[in-house]
Amino acid sequence: MGELRYYMTIESTIIEMAKAAKKAAVAMARCPSDRKNEVLLNIAEKLEADAAHIKAENAKDIVFAREKGLSNAMIDRLTIKDATIASMAQGLREVAQLEDPLGAIVKTWRRPNGLEVSRMRIPLGVIGIIYESRPNVTVDAAGLCFKAGNAVILRGGSEALNSNQALAGIISAALKETGLPEKAVQVVPMREREAVNVLLRQEESIDLIIPRGGESLIRFVVENSKIPVLKHYKGVCHVYVDDGADIEMAKEICLNAKVQRPGVCNAMETLLVHKLIAWDFLPEMGKRFADARVEIRGCPETCHILSNAKEATEADWAAEYLDLILAVKVVNNMDEAIRHIQTYGSDHTEAIVTSDYERARRFVREVDSSVVLVNASTRFNDGGQLGLGAEIGISTSKLHAFGPMGVEELTTTKFVVFGDGQVRS
Amino acid sequence: MGELRYYMTIESTIIEMAKAAKKAAVAMARCPSDRKNEVLLNIAEKLEADAAHIKAENAKDIVFAREKGLSNAMIDRLTIKDATIASMAQGLREVAQLEDPLGAIVKTWRRPNGLEVSRMRIPLGVIGIIYESRPNVTVDAAGLCFKAGNAVILRGGSEALNSNQALAGIISAALKETGLPEKAVQVVPMREREAVNVLLRQEESIDLIIPRGGESLIRFVVENSKIPVLKHYKGVCHVYVDDGADIEMAKEICLNAKVQRPGVCNAMETLLVHKLIAWDFLPEMGKRFADARVEIRGCPETCHILSNAKEATEADWAAEYLDLILAVKVVNNMDEAIRHIQTYGSDHTEAIVTSDYERARRFVREVDSSVVLVNASTRFNDGGQLGLGAEIGISTSKLHAFGPMGVEELTTTKFVVFGDGQVRS
Repeated sequence: MGELRYYMTIESTIIEMAKAAKKAAVAMARCPSDRKNEVLLNIAEKLEADAAHIKAENAKDIVFAREKGLSNAMIDRLTIKDATIASMAQGLREVAQLEDPLGAIVKTWRRPNGLEVSRMRIPLGVIGIIYESRPNVTVDAAGLCFKAGNAVILRGGSEALNSNQALAGIISAALKETGLPEKAVQVVPMREREAVNVLLRQEESIDLIIPRGGESLIRFVVENSKIPVLKHYKGVCHVYVDDGADIEMAKEICLNAKVQRPGVCNAMETLLVHKLIAWDFLPEMGKRFADARVEIRGCPETCHILSNAKEATEADWAAEYLDLILAVKVVNNMDEAIRHIQTYGSDHTEAIVTSDYERARRFVREVDSSVVLVNASTRFNDGGQLGLGAEIGISTSKLHAFGPMGVEELTTTKFVVFGDGQVRS
Repeated sequence: MGELRYYMTIESTIIEMAKAAKKAAVAMARCPSDRKNEVLLNIAEKLEADAAHIKAENAKDIVFAREKGLSNAMIDRLTIKDATIASMAQGLREVAQLEDPLGAIVKTWRRPNGLEVSRMRIPLGVIGIIYESRPNVTVDAAGLCFKAGNAVILRGGSEALNSNQALAGIISAALKETGLPEKAVQVVPMREREAVNVLLRQEESIDLIIPRGGESLIRFVVENSKIPVLKHYKGVCHVYVDDGADIEMAKEICLNAKVQRPGVCNAMETLLVHKLIAWDFLPEMGKRFADARVEIRGCPETCHILSNAKEATEADWAAEYLDLILAVKVVNNMDEAIRHIQTYGSDHTEAIVTSDYERARRFVREVDSSVVLVNASTRFNDGGQLGLGAEIGISTSKLHAFGPMGVEELTTTKFVVFGDGQVRS
């Protein structure tokens, strides 16, 4: 019975939060840009002013994490340094600079009966963000959702609870000072996973869930959510080096795609090489990769060309290594490359290096990944790099948003119709 | 064991269909407009030519439905007449006339490093449509999904199986003649509900589920789907008649919104009237409604003005009658009307009748329903009426599509990036 009562406390807390968020969202939708930007700048200032308090709360989380025996990598992600605070504040100042997407008329037309129809950009409403260790997500995600006129409920990693609540307190204080509803940004105040389950069932109040973290977190959310989810499972990104490609350019792009930051989703995981360029390209490229300590797992032809390559297994073609490992395959032509991508790819990011007009055009038409590049590194699949200003994540499912999601992807459109008495006959 | 084996047959059939659809979707995405339109016109022709066969198969369903004791209304919806066939054929010819949304560059911009970024419209992939009795949905939905370059799996009402398979046979024949993959349009060939459960779990192959039918069907789909769902639960649509509105216009709009077709989701269910216009407007309006046999359920003030009105209960404010019944409330001002809509509305369709510039503008800004109208009937929330060409349904959830969904809402966009060797530093 005690347990049941405790569970009911979690449930009623979350339901209250969701309802309060829905109410706050109504006020948020009408909030002028000036005031939103004022709040964003105010939070940035407070973050810097309250750095000592934030770091003290963060230190409690770190003690707890060490007691729990979390890995150094996890603790590193959890730690808030002065640089972390500076970067959060800077991020908010940049978001304040972004154009307000709301109220924009996306399209407008007139019907034969004189009705004027248009589509106007409005907020989504309430967004739930479910994420893992990094407490900076609390500020970054809240800032973007807020700029787009949404209310947001944040559920971070249980090991970051003190840090997240400290950050949430600062955000609430800034909202209050500006006269905006404090409940526009809320952090789930409990560690229990059951809270996530309850959150994912508030489809009457919450319009969208965005999970950020590893594949198991994302699968858990998709499995249990009654609310639409925008997600990306993994990035098995390909570069295809075409016959006749500029070999120097191909080397620079492949090296950048693999080694500039191997642990992220837009890093290259498989390199496909046209057989007619393989002997000109792979030996030199292999040397560059060896210098960068990249382990090569190749098809038989690749292993024939590169003596230090290991033989790839079937699992390598679908692997997201997130590490200095690369699968390499020599293909007969671009069609084989595209088929390989369609079979093993994750719809994330694919690039071709080519000098051929027709093949560039066909690659772009026939590869339906969220970002398709010609003669550029896969590492450009990023909201900031592509000019969206800031991103809340990358979606590899096609509904609503496909690819990097910026502030505009946190909105929707409604139809607005102006008439002068029209009725339907 | 027999049952288990039978279940496994259902499961493997559906999984095979989903995989075949995913394969067909790749070919569909590359299919030029000309060929798609050729298929659409070909299906239209075959429908008319094979009318006798379609009606014979439909007759089997009707016999079965009568044996099962289905209501006359259900049997009416199930029946394919010559007019039904003519209307399906006509619908396809109209879809063939629509502009092909695919390949369009929605937006394009250049980055400081010279990268040219654009967003290109592409199909969603595979769409599953789950619907109830009307067999014409088989043709209408298939036509729209097909035009947008998608493969589609159709699961109609079990009582319409023979009709749907006859229609699917015609579509397949047309696809085959044009050399397009037959599996681009498939009908689930079994009556068991378990087939729907399996279908809703094929998230690796299916990109979107659209349920069309009553609220219980839609709730079942949302509850069980691992695939994103575009849906609308109900339409509790409001008309607010403002102080100073043109009374003649208000009467025409309210009558049209309520009685032109009371059984549909965009019909008015609640009328809100400013108190300063109530005595001028309601008596005459009440007479018009009485002539049209509309039952009025009113707030105390309404009952005071209209002697034949019944007293409304709390449930009336949230009711989707789909019938000649109307809830009427007198409000103190527009803010009260908007609060009422926010409390009881379904985000579907809301209209204001007003002569006041500032209030028209505020109503449009502050009411975030999928379609918001000024001085026009709620009945215009319809893809055809708003100029989308044809619609696959109306979405009242905000993700991806909000409001009537036409051919463009059955697509998404990918990012296309042209470079000349850019790498990330």
